[in-house]
Amino acid sequence: MTANTQQEQRSAYYGQIAQQHLSPLWESLHNLVPKVPRPQIIAAIWKYAQIRDLVMQSGAVISAEEAVRRVLVLENPGLPGKSSMTTTLYAGLQLILPGELAPSHRHTQSALRFIVEGQGAWTAVNGERTTMKPGDFIITPSWTWHDHGNPSVEEGGEPVIWLDGLDIPLIVNLDAGFAENYPESTQPISRPEGDSFARYGHNMLPVRHRVTDPTSPIFSYPYERSREALDTLYRNGELDGWDGVKLRYVNPATGGSPIPTMATFMQFLPAGFSGRTYRSTDATVYCVVEGSGTARIGDNAFSFEPHDIFVAPSWQPVALAASSDAVLFSYSDRPVLSALNLLREERI
Amino acid sequence: MTANTQQEQRSAYYGQIAQQHLSPLWESLHNLVPKVPRPQIIAAIWKYAQIRDLVMQSGAVISAEEAVRRVLVLENPGLPGKSSMTTTLYAGLQLILPGELAPSHRHTQSALRFIVEGQGAWTAVNGERTTMKPGDFIITPSWTWHDHGNPSVEEGGEPVIWLDGLDIPLIVNLDAGFAENYPESTQPISRPEGDSFARYGHNMLPVRHRVTDPTSPIFSYPYERSREALDTLYRNGELDGWDGVKLRYVNPATGGSPIPTMATFMQFLPAGFSGRTYRSTDATVYCVVEGSGTARIGDNAFSFEPHDIFVAPSWQPVALAASSDAVLFSYSDRPVLSALNLLREERI
Amino acid sequence: MTANTQQEQRSAYYGQIAQQHLSPLWESLHNLVPKVPRPQIIAAIWKYAQIRDLVMQSGAVISAEEAVRRVLVLENPGLPGKSSMTTTLYAGLQLILPGELAPSHRHTQSALRFIVEGQGAWTAVNGERTTMKPGDFIITPSWTWHDHGNPSVEEGGEPVIWLDGLDIPLIVNLDAGFAENYPESTQPISRPEGDSFARYGHNMLPVRHRVTDPTSPIFSYPYERSREALDTLYRNGELDGWDGVKLRYVNPATGGSPIPTMATFMQFLPAGFSGRTYRSTDATVYCVVEGSGTARIGDNAFSFEPHDIFVAPSWQPVALAASSDAVLFSYSDRPVLSALNLLREERI
Amino acid sequence: MTANTQQEQRSAYYGQIAQQHLSPLWESLHNLVPKVPRPQIIAAIWKYAQIRDLVMQSGAVISAEEAVRRVLVLENPGLPGKSSMTTTLYAGLQLILPGELAPSHRHTQSALRFIVEGQGAWTAVNGERTTMKPGDFIITPSWTWHDHGNPSVEEGGEPVIWLDGLDIPLIVNLDAGFAENYPESTQPISRPEGDSFARYGHNMLPVRHRVTDPTSPIFSYPYERSREALDTLYRNGELDGWDGVKLRYVNPATGGSPIPTMATFMQFLPAGFSGRTYRSTDATVYCVVEGSGTARIGDNAFSFEPHDIFVAPSWQPVALAASSDAVLFSYSDRPVLSALNLLREERI
Repeated sequence: MTANTQQEQRSAYYGQIAQQHLSPLWESLHNLVPKVPRPQIIAAIWKYAQIRDLVMQSGAVISAEEAVRRVLVLENPGLPGKSSMTTTLYAGLQLILPGELAPSHRHTQSALRFIVEGQGAWTAVNGERTTMKPGDFIITPSWTWHDHGNPSVEEGGEPVIWLDGLDIPLIVNLDAGFAENYPESTQPISRPEGDSFARYGHNMLPVRHRVTDPTSPIFSYPYERSREALDTLYRNGELDGWDGVKLRYVNPATGGSPIPTMATFMQFLPAGFSGRTYRSTDATVYCVVEGSGTARIGDNAFSFEPHDIFVAPSWQPVALAASSDAVLFSYSDRPVLSALNLLREERI
Repeated sequence: MTANTQQEQRSAYYGQIAQQHLSPLWESLHNLVPKVPRPQIIAAIWKYAQIRDLVMQSGAVISAEEAVRRVLVLENPGLPGKSSMTTTLYAGLQLILPGELAPSHRHTQSALRFIVEGQGAWTAVNGERTTMKPGDFIITPSWTWHDHGNPSVEEGGEPVIWLDGLDIPLIVNLDAGFAENYPESTQPISRPEGDSFARYGHNMLPVRHRVTDPTSPIFSYPYERSREALDTLYRNGELDGWDGVKLRYVNPATGGSPIPTMATFMQFLPAGFSGRTYRSTDATVYCVVEGSGTARIGDNAFSFEPHDIFVAPSWQPVALAASSDAVLFSYSDRPVLSALNLLREERI
Repeated sequence: MTANTQQEQRSAYYGQIAQQHLSPLWESLHNLVPKVPRPQIIAAIWKYAQIRDLVMQSGAVISAEEAVRRVLVLENPGLPGKSSMTTTLYAGLQLILPGELAPSHRHTQSALRFIVEGQGAWTAVNGERTTMKPGDFIITPSWTWHDHGNPSVEEGGEPVIWLDGLDIPLIVNLDAGFAENYPESTQPISRPEGDSFARYGHNMLPVRHRVTDPTSPIFSYPYERSREALDTLYRNGELDGWDGVKLRYVNPATGGSPIPTMATFMQFLPAGFSGRTYRSTDATVYCVVEGSGTARIGDNAFSFEPHDIFVAPSWQPVALAASSDAVLFSYSDRPVLSALNLLREERI
Repeated sequence: MTANTQQEQRSAYYGQIAQQHLSPLWESLHNLVPKVPRPQIIAAIWKYAQIRDLVMQSGAVISAEEAVRRVLVLENPGLPGKSSMTTTLYAGLQLILPGELAPSHRHTQSALRFIVEGQGAWTAVNGERTTMKPGDFIITPSWTWHDHGNPSVEEGGEPVIWLDGLDIPLIVNLDAGFAENYPESTQPISRPEGDSFARYGHNMLPVRHRVTDPTSPIFSYPYERSREALDTLYRNGELDGWDGVKLRYVNPATGGSPIPTMATFMQFLPAGFSGRTYRSTDATVYCVVEGSGTARIGDNAFSFEPHDIFVAPSWQPVALAASSDAVLFSYSDRPVLSALNLLREERI
C-alpha cells in the first residue's frame, strides 16, 4: 500500500469515527503527552510605571459599587481573552478610592490580596475587618463573605491599590465555581480588628480549635513582621544561592499553605545578589515590593522596579538578581501540584 | 453623561489598557465567577454496539507499534478537538491484537485500564506483568515504565479492548507533563505475576514498607473479588437509595484513592432499582460492566447496555436505574477536588 | 568539708525537702534517664506442651460465665503480680468450652485474639459474629461491645484456645481505662458473618466511609489468606536476612496498624533459616503457629515448637532460626512508639 | 461442692499455674479493667512560699556541675519514690546560680522549661542560645544536645528558677530511654539568639523546610507574646465558662503540640471568674504565673498564688476560680492520649 493510499484510508476512517465523537490518539499523542511541559503562557512583565495611571483612571471609568470589583486583569499575552495569568492563576490590580465600598459576596475561588500602594482601606472577612498597609498579605478564604472599603477623604482615606491573586482559571477547569451575593453591601462586623491574629497568630491556637478547613484562620500577615523575619535571617548569615532569603507563608494550624490552592512567598535579595538558575512546574507570579534588579526567565531578561509584576511559566529557567536590596512577594499553584504528586523542580 | 457616551469612553479605555495586556474584570466577572458550575462538557453516551466495529477496524488502520498506543479517544462533544472527556479526564478505547506489543514508555500522567472485552493480554508495570480479564481494574502509576502486549494467536491470544482513563487534560492545565520512551520495546520483567498483590493486597504490607508515593502499590484489582464484595453486601441487605451498593477502590497502604488524581468506583444496581437523584462537582465517567438500565443526567435519559460508556458533567443531576442486575465501573477527579477542598455534593 | 560531713548535710537536707514531697534529682538521674533502655521485663518462653493441660484444667476450675473471661495470664517473670507481659502489653490464653458464653462487655482497652487451637467458637463485635479457626487474627476495637461463645458439643463445638493480646498495662499507666457490662449476656446480631470483610477487606471501601477511628473496620484476618501471601512471596524469592518473609497487618482504611496501640505481624522462616540479629525499642510477644526453631534473645536461646509463646524485651538483641518451615505471629507496641517518635531499631 | 472446697481447689490450682508464670485473670480483671480511671496519683499543690527557700538552699547543697541538673523533683504523694508527678509526667524546680553551667547532654526524653523566677540565664539547643525571662515557655526536643548557663554576678547574673516538665515516667514505661553526655560542658554555638524564632515564628517557614520531626522548631515562646494574645482575646470578649481564655502552644510547622508527648497551655482567668467543672483523661500540671484563686480538684480546694504548682489527676473534676486576674501555665500528656484515641473529656 502506498503512503498516499494509507493516508487516504486513514482520513476516511477518521471521518467515520468522528461521527461517533471518536478521534485517533496516535495523531495527537505527542501533543497530549509532551516530553516536557509546553506552557501556552509566556513570561511577561507589567511595569508599574506604565500601568499605574491606567489603574488610577479606572476610578473615573466605573465606580467600585457598579464594578462590584474594580480590577484591571493582567492577562498573560499567551492566553489572550482568558483573564488568566497562568493556566491556574489569575492576577489583577484592584483600586478602591476613598469613600468607596466593594459589595459583599462569596465564592469558592480563594483570593489573596497583596497591598501595593496606599493604606487605610479595609477588607472584611468572617465578621472581622483588616486594615491594609503596603506589603501586607491578606487572604479571603473560599466561600467566606468578603467586602472591601475605604474611609472617605475626610476620614483620611486615600486611593489604595492591591494585587489580587485568585485561583479562577483552576476553578474554571475543575467546574467547581459557586458564588453568592450578600443581601447587604457590607457584612456585619462581629469581632474587633486583630482578633483572628491574636487567636491564631502567636504560635498558639484556641484550646478547642479543630481544623475543619485547610485555609489559614489568620486573615492578614503584616509586612512589618515578614520583613523583620527576612532581615533577621539575612543578618544571621542566611543566603541561598538560588533563593536569597526566602520564606513561605503558612497556615499556623497545619503548617500548610495559607490557601489550599496557592502558595505564597516573600524573599529578600541583597544588593549585588546574582542568583543561580532553577526551574519548577509551579508557574509563579512575582510582585516587587522593594528594590530593583533583573529576572531572567527563559530567553527573557526583565528589569524590575518596585510594584512591577512578572510571571514565570512552568519549567522555564529562572534566575533573579538584585541591583539594590530587593524584596519580592510571589504566589504559585505549588500546593495543587504537591497534593497531586506533580511538583518537580530542578536547581541548575 | 449619556449611556452611549459612557460606553464609548469605556471602549476607548478598554482599547488603551489592552495594549498593556490589561482587561476590565467587571465585564467578565459573571463568567469567571459563576453562581453555579457551567461546564463546557455535556452529558453523552457512547453505545458500544455502535463503536465496537470501529474499534476493531482500528486494528487494520494502524499497528499497535506504529501507533504507540492504538486508542480511539472518546471526545466529549462539548469539547471538540480537545481529546477530553471532561475538563480534567481523558477516556479512550484501546485495542491490542494477538501478537502485538505497545512499546514501553512512562509519563507523569496516571492511567487506569478497565478491561472491556477479551482476555489474556498483559500490561507490565515496574517489572511485573498483569494478565487482563474483563472487569479487572488495572493501574499505571505516574512516571512508571509500562508496556502492553498480547500473546500470539498460536499462544491463544485474542483481541482485547479496554477503557483507558487518564488525567491528561488536568496535566495539560497544570503544565506538568513529562514523558520518556524506554530504550527497548518492553521493560525487563523482574517479578512473577501476582507478586505485588501478594505483597500488598491481603490487608497486610511488607513490614518495612514506607509510603513515599500516593499511588497504590497494587497494580490489578481483579473483577472476581470486586464483584464478590458487591454480591455479599447486596445479599446482606445493603442498598443505598442513590448509589445501590457502591464501593470505591483504595490504595491499601493509605486508604486513599489508588491514583492521586482519579477516584474509581464499582457499584451494583439490582434489577428494578430506581435510584434517587444526586449531583456532585466531580464529573464522572461510567463504563457498564453488566446489565442494562437508564441513566438520567441533566435533561438526558440514556439507556445503557454492557460496555456502554457515559459521562455526567459537574453538578448535573444524575439518577441511575436498572432493568436487569447491573454493574457499573466509574471514575472521576474526586481526589483532586477533595484535596483542594472543592468537592461539593448534594443528594436531592 | 569532708565527704562525710557533706553526705550528712545532704541527708539532712533530703529529709527536710521530703516533707514537702520534693526529692533530689541528682540522686536518681542516672536511673531515670538511662544510657540505654533497662527493661524490668525479661526474655521468657511459655512452652505450650507444659501449659496446655493447665489451660484445659481451667475449664473445670471456673465457668466462662463466672470468670467473665476465663484466661490464664502469662506474667512476665520480671514483673510478678502485675498481669503484664511487657510494660505496655498483656498476654493471656483464653479457653472457651463447647456450649459456653463469655458475656458481653466493652472497655477502652483494645484486644487482639490469635487462635491457637480448636475451631468453631465465635466472637461478636459491633453486631457481627466471626468464627474462629487456628491462625486467624481477630480484633476487638476499643470501646466496642464484644462477647465470645462456642457451639454445644451437639452442634459440633470443641474446646477453643486463643491468645489474648491487650494494651492493659499501657492503659493502666495512662489512667485511661473505662469499662461497661452489656445488660444481656450477648449483644444483638445485626449483620451476617463476613459482612465487614466484604465491606472493607477487598481493597475497596464503602463510597461514603469516613475514617473516624484509627481501628481497622475488619474484625478478622483469616490465616488462610495471610499464609498464602507469605507462601507466594517466599516462592517469589523474597527472604530478608533478619526477618525471613515478614508482613504487618494493616487497617485497610488508613494503612496504619489494625489497632492504634498494637502492631501485629506474621512471618515465615524457611527450614534452615538462620536469621541475623536485630533489636528494637518495641518489646514483642511471639506466638508460634507452625514449625520449630530457636529464638536467641539477649543471653537466652529458646527452642520453640508450635503454640509456644515468647517475649523479647526492648532493645535486647533478637535472632530467629528455623529447623523446619516456621510461621510466627507477633505483636508489639510499635505504633505507640512511632506515634511519639520514640521508635528506634538496629540491624546488627 | 462447698464454697470452701472450691476455694481450696482454686488456690491449689493457682499455686500450680504460678510455677509456669500464669495467673488467673478472673481474680484481677476488675482491677485491670476498671469502670473508670482509678489513678494512683492524687491531687496536690506545692506552695511556692513553702518551697522557694528549699530550692534556693539546694544551691549550697550541690553545684550545678556536680548535680548535672540541680533539680528538686516534685513527687506526687500518691507515687512516693517514683520521681513522678503523674504516671507519665515529671515536674521539677531547677535552680541555676550566677556563673554556673549545667553540662551538655541529650536524651530521648523531651523537656519543657517554664521560667518561674529570675532572668538572664540561658539554655542552648541545637547550637542556639535562648535567654530566659519569667513566663517564657522553652522546649528541649528529644535527642538534642542542651546545656544551661547563667552569667556571673559581675555580668549581671541572678539566680534563676524554672519548672522542668519532662515525659520521664512515660519513657520509663515504654523502655525507650537513651542518653548521652556531650564531650564538652557546652555545645558550640552556631546561630545567633532569635534565629529559630525569625525562621519559624512569624507564621512563615523556610521555603525548603521539611517536617521530619514532630517537635516544634521554635525553642522559645516568649511570655510577652502569649500574654498579649490572652489580653487581646479577653478585651475582645472571649470568655469560656470552663476555661476562661485558654490557648494551646503549637508547633507552627504542623499545628500539633510543640512536643509530641506533652501539650502546653496558657490561660487567663479574670478577677471574679468562677469556672465550671470539667474532667479529662489527661492528668495536668499547673503552674501559676500571675494572680490568685482557687482550684477545686476532686474533693480538694487549693488556694493558689503566683508560682504555686498543682496537679489534677485523670478524670477528677476540676473547677478553677480567680480572686485576682490570674494567668496559669499548664502541661499534660494530652497528645499521647489523642494519638492513641484514648482522650476522653467531659464538661459538667
